[in-house]
Amino acid sequence: MITFCQFGAGRIGAIHAANIAAHPQASLKYVVDPVAEAAQNLADRHGAQVATMETALADPEVNAVLIASSTDTHADFIEAAARAGKAILCEKPIDLDLERTKACLQVVEETGTLLALGFNRRHDPNFRQIRDAMLDGKIGKTEMVQITSRDPSPPPAEYVARSGGLFRDMMIHDLDMAQWLLGEKPVEVFATASCLVDPAIGEAGDVDTALVTLKTASGKLAQISNSRRAAYGYDQRVEAFGEKGMLRAENVRPTTVELMTDDGATTDKPLYFFLERYEAAYRAELDDFVTALTDKRTPLAIGRDGLIALELAEAALESCKTGKAVRL
Amino acid sequence: MITFCQFGAGRIGAIHAANIAAHPQASLKYVVDPVAEAAQNLADRHGAQVATMETALADPEVNAVLIASSTDTHADFIEAAARAGKAILCEKPIDLDLERTKACLQVVEETGTLLALGFNRRHDPNFRQIRDAMLDGKIGKTEMVQITSRDPSPPPAEYVARSGGLFRDMMIHDLDMAQWLLGEKPVEVFATASCLVDPAIGEAGDVDTALVTLKTASGKLAQISNSRRAAYGYDQRVEAFGEKGMLRAENVRPTTVELMTDDGATTDKPLYFFLERYEAAYRAELDDFVTALTDKRTPLAIGRDGLIALELAEAALESCKTGKAVRL
Amino acid sequence: MITFCQFGAGRIGAIHAANIAAHPQASLKYVVDPVAEAAQNLADRHGAQVATMETALADPEVNAVLIASSTDTHADFIEAAARAGKAILCEKPIDLDLERTKACLQVVEETGTLLALGFNRRHDPNFRQIRDAMLDGKIGKTEMVQITSRDPSPPPAEYVARSGGLFRDMMIHDLDMAQWLLGEKPVEVFATASCLVDPAIGEAGDVDTALVTLKTASGKLAQISNSRRAAYGYDQRVEAFGEKGMLRAENVRPTTVELMTDDGATTDKPLYFFLERYEAAYRAELDDFVTALTDKRTPLAIGRDGLIALELAEAALESCKTGKAVRL
Amino acid sequence: MITFCQFGAGRIGAIHAANIAAHPQASLKYVVDPVAEAAQNLADRHGAQVATMETALADPEVNAVLIASSTDTHADFIEAAARAGKAILCEKPIDLDLERTKACLQVVEETGTLLALGFNRRHDPNFRQIRDAMLDGKIGKTEMVQITSRDPSPPPAEYVARSGGLFRDMMIHDLDMAQWLLGEKPVEVFATASCLVDPAIGEAGDVDTALVTLKTASGKLAQISNSRRAAYGYDQRVEAFGEKGMLRAENVRPTTVELMTDDGATTDKPLYFFLERYEAAYRAELDDFVTALTDKRTPLAIGRDGLIALELAEAALESCKTGKAVRL
Repeated sequence: MITFCQFGAGRIGAIHAANIAAHPQASLKYVVDPVAEAAQNLADRHGAQVATMETALADPEVNAVLIASSTDTHADFIEAAARAGKAILCEKPIDLDLERTKACLQVVEETGTLLALGFNRRHDPNFRQIRDAMLDGKIGKTEMVQITSRDPSPPPAEYVARSGGLFRDMMIHDLDMAQWLLGEKPVEVFATASCLVDPAIGEAGDVDTALVTLKTASGKLAQISNSRRAAYGYDQRVEAFGEKGMLRAENVRPTTVELMTDDGATTDKPLYFFLERYEAAYRAELDDFVTALTDKRTPLAIGRDGLIALELAEAALESCKTGKAVRL
Repeated sequence: MITFCQFGAGRIGAIHAANIAAHPQASLKYVVDPVAEAAQNLADRHGAQVATMETALADPEVNAVLIASSTDTHADFIEAAARAGKAILCEKPIDLDLERTKACLQVVEETGTLLALGFNRRHDPNFRQIRDAMLDGKIGKTEMVQITSRDPSPPPAEYVARSGGLFRDMMIHDLDMAQWLLGEKPVEVFATASCLVDPAIGEAGDVDTALVTLKTASGKLAQISNSRRAAYGYDQRVEAFGEKGMLRAENVRPTTVELMTDDGATTDKPLYFFLERYEAAYRAELDDFVTALTDKRTPLAIGRDGLIALELAEAALESCKTGKAVRL
Repeated sequence: MITFCQFGAGRIGAIHAANIAAHPQASLKYVVDPVAEAAQNLADRHGAQVATMETALADPEVNAVLIASSTDTHADFIEAAARAGKAILCEKPIDLDLERTKACLQVVEETGTLLALGFNRRHDPNFRQIRDAMLDGKIGKTEMVQITSRDPSPPPAEYVARSGGLFRDMMIHDLDMAQWLLGEKPVEVFATASCLVDPAIGEAGDVDTALVTLKTASGKLAQISNSRRAAYGYDQRVEAFGEKGMLRAENVRPTTVELMTDDGATTDKPLYFFLERYEAAYRAELDDFVTALTDKRTPLAIGRDGLIALELAEAALESCKTGKAVRL
Repeated sequence: MITFCQFGAGRIGAIHAANIAAHPQASLKYVVDPVAEAAQNLADRHGAQVATMETALADPEVNAVLIASSTDTHADFIEAAARAGKAILCEKPIDLDLERTKACLQVVEETGTLLALGFNRRHDPNFRQIRDAMLDGKIGKTEMVQITSRDPSPPPAEYVARSGGLFRDMMIHDLDMAQWLLGEKPVEVFATASCLVDPAIGEAGDVDTALVTLKTASGKLAQISNSRRAAYGYDQRVEAFGEKGMLRAENVRPTTVELMTDDGATTDKPLYFFLERYEAAYRAELDDFVTALTDKRTPLAIGRDGLIALELAEAALESCKTGKAVRL
């Protein structure tokens, strides 16, 4: 049985806490959050207690921490939990700053802690099946990966300002997906971007529409297409191309119903929101972490993956400014 | 808050108990089952108590009973619960015998009890969306309904012997779906059937492959196709045709992944088992019952629907024997 | 080289004449039609001559006749061509009358003539692929066949009056498809029908909406669904179910384009008209006939198939009136 | 009636000649080809004559020339035809050399000739429908275009050597498609490429796998993905994304048949070859040219489009070498 302390009682924290509570090998003992009421509500819902970080980490019964607090607290909580000898499942990113990320991972390494990173999309049943089929040789040698990733609607400009920008905040998921599916770290990054959706995003110094091209040392290629707004919902598709064929995952739709009239044939648009689309992924992510601990194996995404993705995001940002491909 | 006593701690009982426990307006107080260990395990899992029927029905805190016990106990439990003034959600069927069913519904009527019937497929998001779109006029006046319903694999012959046979046990779901979508009670039933899947089913006096045709007083038509075995999984499709168009629901597949190679393009087959396919439907069914109670409205399927479906099943059985359409 | 005389210069005749002219092993020498202008136009378009039946059949260069004239002339032309020793490709039906059909086939048999019948749907690439896959054992032993066949819009009531009615005129295609895919002649027919689309059709003594159930001696089953009107176009689908799986052919749509907006995802509706939908089928039918002649093999559909389909249509009509399954 | 002289009697020439012969407003008078036998065969098939360029261009009855000869003869034939006052439909490219292309277009402009260019994909019913829906405002303001274009199998290395390379020979179609759909000329081009399919292609100095990113002055973006080999056939997909939604065209498959077994659900792979996939496009291209002449309007693709596409290909080639985005 893995006993958890959870940091963060917000929207995504509520998802994780419910998944811990529902998992047969896990239980939630503590909730830590500066907003006392949120912490208490979430703790009550799952029979847990509110605590300070210090109390929670000092409890020898706690084996694991789940970090779902605000981004700027991730690295500190990781270091504290690592030093307390707790296994960690942390929402991405470790930190928006590359040096802070490296320092944090240094602590993780020194303490020998297990740090799983919440790249939830790796756990999506569709993308997971693509990866498994690739490992199974279904398309032979991988040659290209295409990722389409578009949010249903843009965030408020004030969020944009402190988000780290599209590349660090949004595309980082796709950069991780790309390197995961390529099975090889990209060494060359080209990016171009525009502000086409909302001028306020441009005024906040960010972009809302972006394309990235990646190349690995052996010549494998990847393309990513991002937009902060898709009128038809959350557009999350992946395609892998290899010598023997192609694998692709379509969007997920709420029903399979088709209406056929004189006006054409109409089906549902994709699921609108990431919590619906990745509901199964969040459950699988928690399960992967728990069984990694019980079976003493490596989780699907670890701290180093977060570092690689952030380096790729930084490179994309630089390429966008210089108009040149950036070599890593 | 609706407080439940549940009868039955088997496979389907476990589903219902978990849904009650997870529902924000419901709680599970008692589990009743002749198999003491099963009752205890299920009660423990959800913080409920094991009890006898008498104790549970005598508790004024209990507002509702969920009957998921063996088919031959349904009518007795319904009557006992009705007389105790509890609202009832009962798995289909009320009883395999038409007269017993009528007698039971008589008690329900006299006591003024609310009896919801577990025709889970009405709650499937796909079929529900078809029904809603029909009520919304999307295909105009309904003219034909087609239902394809095939189990992944045949039951053991010993189950067949006591099941009431394909028409009462399996097709009853489709007969209910047909009359629900037609929006009008069928008055003419024709059936034909074969034993093509497993000779042991034929030896047990039943069929495993059957087609039924229904006609309503206004001339609307419906077709049902049943098989006890589909090599590719649980085949559950519905199509409604009207003056302005057609609505249809395809099977549900576990992922959207497509593999394209020199051998063709391959996707997942349908979900294999009814517990997976109708997982959301069982949740919606419980929610429909709970909100029917709290909002004082009629649930999506009630006792009378069970009677109509059983009458249609009896008529199909007779038609099958006589080679004539049976008029109701 | 097969040299053709064609009877009939109407809409369907124009299709056949163009296919003969375009076929590398065929040429069109004569066009015969009582409407002189139509005959001349069609002959001119393909470098053929207008002739009387007598002249054309007397020409030893003519190997084959294609009969695309009005239904009531088919049997006479077949007999004349058979007696002249010409191979025959005749549009369905041979005749609307069962006795006349049998008498005509008697002549065909006595003369040893090859009579191919224009059941064009057998040549549709989709349905042909289903049949081939069945023969190839892809679904194992066949158990059920489902055919959906709906015209885009009802014919004028005056056509209905002389058409022989829905069963002989429209469903005959589906009855042929059913027996072809079942691979076994049905011995039991049940039919039910309504007039839901156009009251004028009912006043003309016909129905516009019909369901038929077929059963073979070995217990295989088939269902057919017909409507004279589908708001979304020409609905032509086939499904074959067997011990190892299912084969199905969807409608054909003009493009693969999908528009996805806030209102849902929209694709094309099916091709609207039989000439578009079965364009490739008519070409394949002609080619099958020509290569049957050059390779001395049996065409995909022959005279006897027309008789079987007509017998099934007559049985359906009788079942519809009596409410009983009719045994053949 | 438009009377044609056709240059080139090879594989693609045979397609064009047949389309001319079948078009009600066109006729084929001359075939010109250095290979006498090929010219004679093609001329015979359509009742045309073999001629020299001089004779054909001197014939005042000839209104139009169709150039389907080898690439290195295009520019010369265009100039000769332009000077003879004939309208021209020329297979792409005008020339592989940018300066030669410009000089040729100069002659076209001076003579006031109509020069339509054979960018056949613009005439594909799927892509055409996307373009029409965009012009019709279905997705609002265009923001991104994604083009997937993969050949079924790589050309022989000796072809590669004289083809002008992947960017000029293959991607030029996609560059044209991108600028056509964007509705705005790209001003920035980034390309990266690998040799992953066949080392012989690399030895011939070319690449076989390439990604290109385009940006217009207003910030619209496009991505292209090319491979010289797709194990599953000819992969030709287009997607356009805008403020109100997305339009996409899937591959075209030979049938709609799906086989569902215990192994999954299998459908046809895409049409394998460009002559099958773009059969309708070639017919529409000829029709567009003929009606442009008879109705005195501009064809869908003209000489200048070929220049733009070639400039984009040159820029892609340069970007590939330098690792920098090239500005036009």
